[in-house]
Amino acid sequence: MTTPYTYEKSRAAFARATRVIPSGIYGHQGPSEGVYVPREAFPLFSARAAGSRFWDVDGNEFIDYMCGYGPNVLGYHDPDVDAAAQAQARLEDVVTIPSTVMVDFAELLVDTVASADWAFFAKNGGDTTTLAVMTARAATRRKKIVLFGGYYHGVAPWAQKLDYPGVLEEDVAHVLHAPWNDLAALRRLFSEHRGQIAGLVAQPYMHGNFVDNVLPDPGFWQGVRRLCDEHGVVLVVDDVRAGWRLDIAGSDHFYGFEADLICFCKALANGYNVSALCGKDSLKDAVSSLTYTGSYWMSAVPFAAGIATITKLRDTDATTRFRTLGTRLTDGLVGAAREHGFTLVASGEPALFYLRLADDDSLGLHQAWIAQMVRRGVFLTSHHNHFVNAALTEADVDRTVEIAHEAFTAVRADRPLPVGA
Amino acid sequence: MTTPYTYEKSRAAFARATRVIPSGIYGHQGPSEGVYVPREAFPLFSARAAGSRFWDVDGNEFIDYMCGYGPNVLGYHDPDVDAAAQAQARLEDVVTIPSTVMVDFAELLVDTVASADWAFFAKNGGDTTTLAVMTARAATRRKKIVLFGGYYHGVAPWAQKLDYPGVLEEDVAHVLHAPWNDLAALRRLFSEHRGQIAGLVAQPYMHGNFVDNVLPDPGFWQGVRRLCDEHGVVLVVDDVRAGWRLDIAGSDHFYGFEADLICFCKALANGYNVSALCGKDSLKDAVSSLTYTGSYWMSAVPFAAGIATITKLRDTDATTRFRTLGTRLTDGLVGAAREHGFTLVASGEPALFYLRLADDDSLGLHQAWIAQMVRRGVFLTSHHNHFVNAALTEADVDRTVEIAHEAFTAVRADRPLPVGA
Repeated sequence: MTTPYTYEKSRAAFARATRVIPSGIYGHQGPSEGVYVPREAFPLFSARAAGSRFWDVDGNEFIDYMCGYGPNVLGYHDPDVDAAAQAQARLEDVVTIPSTVMVDFAELLVDTVASADWAFFAKNGGDTTTLAVMTARAATRRKKIVLFGGYYHGVAPWAQKLDYPGVLEEDVAHVLHAPWNDLAALRRLFSEHRGQIAGLVAQPYMHGNFVDNVLPDPGFWQGVRRLCDEHGVVLVVDDVRAGWRLDIAGSDHFYGFEADLICFCKALANGYNVSALCGKDSLKDAVSSLTYTGSYWMSAVPFAAGIATITKLRDTDATTRFRTLGTRLTDGLVGAAREHGFTLVASGEPALFYLRLADDDSLGLHQAWIAQMVRRGVFLTSHHNHFVNAALTEADVDRTVEIAHEAFTAVRADRPLPVGA
Repeated sequence: MTTPYTYEKSRAAFARATRVIPSGIYGHQGPSEGVYVPREAFPLFSARAAGSRFWDVDGNEFIDYMCGYGPNVLGYHDPDVDAAAQAQARLEDVVTIPSTVMVDFAELLVDTVASADWAFFAKNGGDTTTLAVMTARAATRRKKIVLFGGYYHGVAPWAQKLDYPGVLEEDVAHVLHAPWNDLAALRRLFSEHRGQIAGLVAQPYMHGNFVDNVLPDPGFWQGVRRLCDEHGVVLVVDDVRAGWRLDIAGSDHFYGFEADLICFCKALANGYNVSALCGKDSLKDAVSSLTYTGSYWMSAVPFAAGIATITKLRDTDATTRFRTLGTRLTDGLVGAAREHGFTLVASGEPALFYLRLADDDSLGLHQAWIAQMVRRGVFLTSHHNHFVNAALTEADVDRTVEIAHEAFTAVRADRPLPVGA
């Protein structure tokens, strides 16, 4: 049996952090975010990472199913990506005029991504979703943007909710919401706002937090594509989270349709800092007309890393492996739960699996199990989708399932089955 | 005499770029931006960089006065910064939970920047200006933001102009404009919108493009500070461009006042990709209340590079050297112009000097001289401020002035002085 971890050094570092950083650690990597409950179960600071694992400042080792919230797609310190990045770094990175490696990377994306005729590079996923919205507005001379329920498209004011601090009603005045997987509702919305909708921005499937993730119904995306064509609406796929894990030709390609614009970040360069908006030739003039740039946007090292990442993903057929590993893992976890009398629901695509223990309506049972997993060296979150990477092995997955048995045993000890059950 | 450069390989690479990248090279690094005229004078792609120089893909060498548009503050490939970055990279960069080097960097900023009680890290300068605006709105529960004429605060919709493509009237509905160096006008604006203004966002001095840059009049900033205090307006200094070149305690400290929030990017880590919003304790709760995060925002390598950069800037008193070198350069250029019968106006702070040949009202004469400089190996732009870095030597500056003599001679050959002049 594994001895549950403790986190003294993480807690001490967090006390330092709270003095000089708002919230100590902000956003999804911080303990104030709901996905990190129960808080006491989680380490807060890492010391090193390699392959499928990281080690926290207390020396605890974790099999990491969050992958830096997505970027780690080939494994931490992938030797091929790091070698390409270092070779470029010896030449140059951020210089007054760009390197031709930017052109090489754009050409590779155009060759790889089914819906890409061009690529525009930035730094955040949100840089590309905002650029997509501005491009749709410039191209159509319309204002309204449609988002699906459960959306997350970054932290720009237009992508936030009106009741969030710092957000104005004007920021979200032209944002409309539609329910996921409901073509009839979308058709009604498009008709009600005929001639006013610039773009539809959507994740390839509903992978929101705190809810089971929902794949597209058969024919849903094809129906959305038709509706967008009928109404002259720019169809934007936000592939920041799912991109490069389902299909290197794009998650739109995976689900059998073509986006007009597609947003990439996270896994694009295995952690090197770059994002990309790709799109159709019909929108190239519109995106060219915008004022849009940033200080580091043409840095060469992430482009070299991106070329190495995509080349390796392609040459190793990594997305097939992600599906196989993710399925082996979720099947194993669901089976382990069943053996201990629990019902574990795994949703979403296997490469980005979402977990929920369905035996009580509160979140408490699920969080108790996640706590037992994390404190035994399997880094999961309670209410966010997870990520698989190419450095993960069948042995890692099997070890994870073994730990799940221990964790379910510990949870069951606190919550015995009724006599006779 | 130097043989003027030609750019065959740059032009060939640009032809490739235009096929797969909107505008080929977009934004301020691209030839479509007005600061890059005359277009034929400029190289478009670099191959390597070191110290104060870069080399283009045709093998031409340039003394670089743009510094990657600011980031290169210590010299390309500064050995101390690169060593710190590489040591951190061997441990980890983008991981699911952050490294404590984030806390170390925040502590260093709080110790270094006069107006900083805390630091929040992101990736773009614009991430921090938008965060500042949202923080001011959250803290004051007011909507309006005041900007000074000649402003540039990034490419977020609120920071753009209404006639720019993709920008809605709602994006800029609560943005007000005030003239630079005019306290009476600012007082009137604050009174007209009493109780409605959340924040004032301003560069430390007016360093806009296409116009002579303008320093603050004596007492101007102190008057602005008083007005902000009287009206409960959050005073935000956008130090993205000037930061770390005037005063490592902040450009507000340089001009003798304290900002409530201050935005850093560019020179913060000598080209490694990080930005920071720093601020007062009174605003820590407000910034903590916002939803604001991004995929790579806690990557460890740029934090390590930032610590090394600021430490070296401090230990070498680099800002004094920037002023000395910038003054030696602008004095030399102005003197060279005079010897050839031209009037060169150097404006702004010497570390970020702006140049304009004042002998004709069109931009043509100035652009002709810039073209002669660039084609002889001195990388300047026609209508943007420039940047000095710590790898620049007196010999580099003197060589630049020598080249200026050649360039003025070439310009004079095309525009002979009137007989008898």
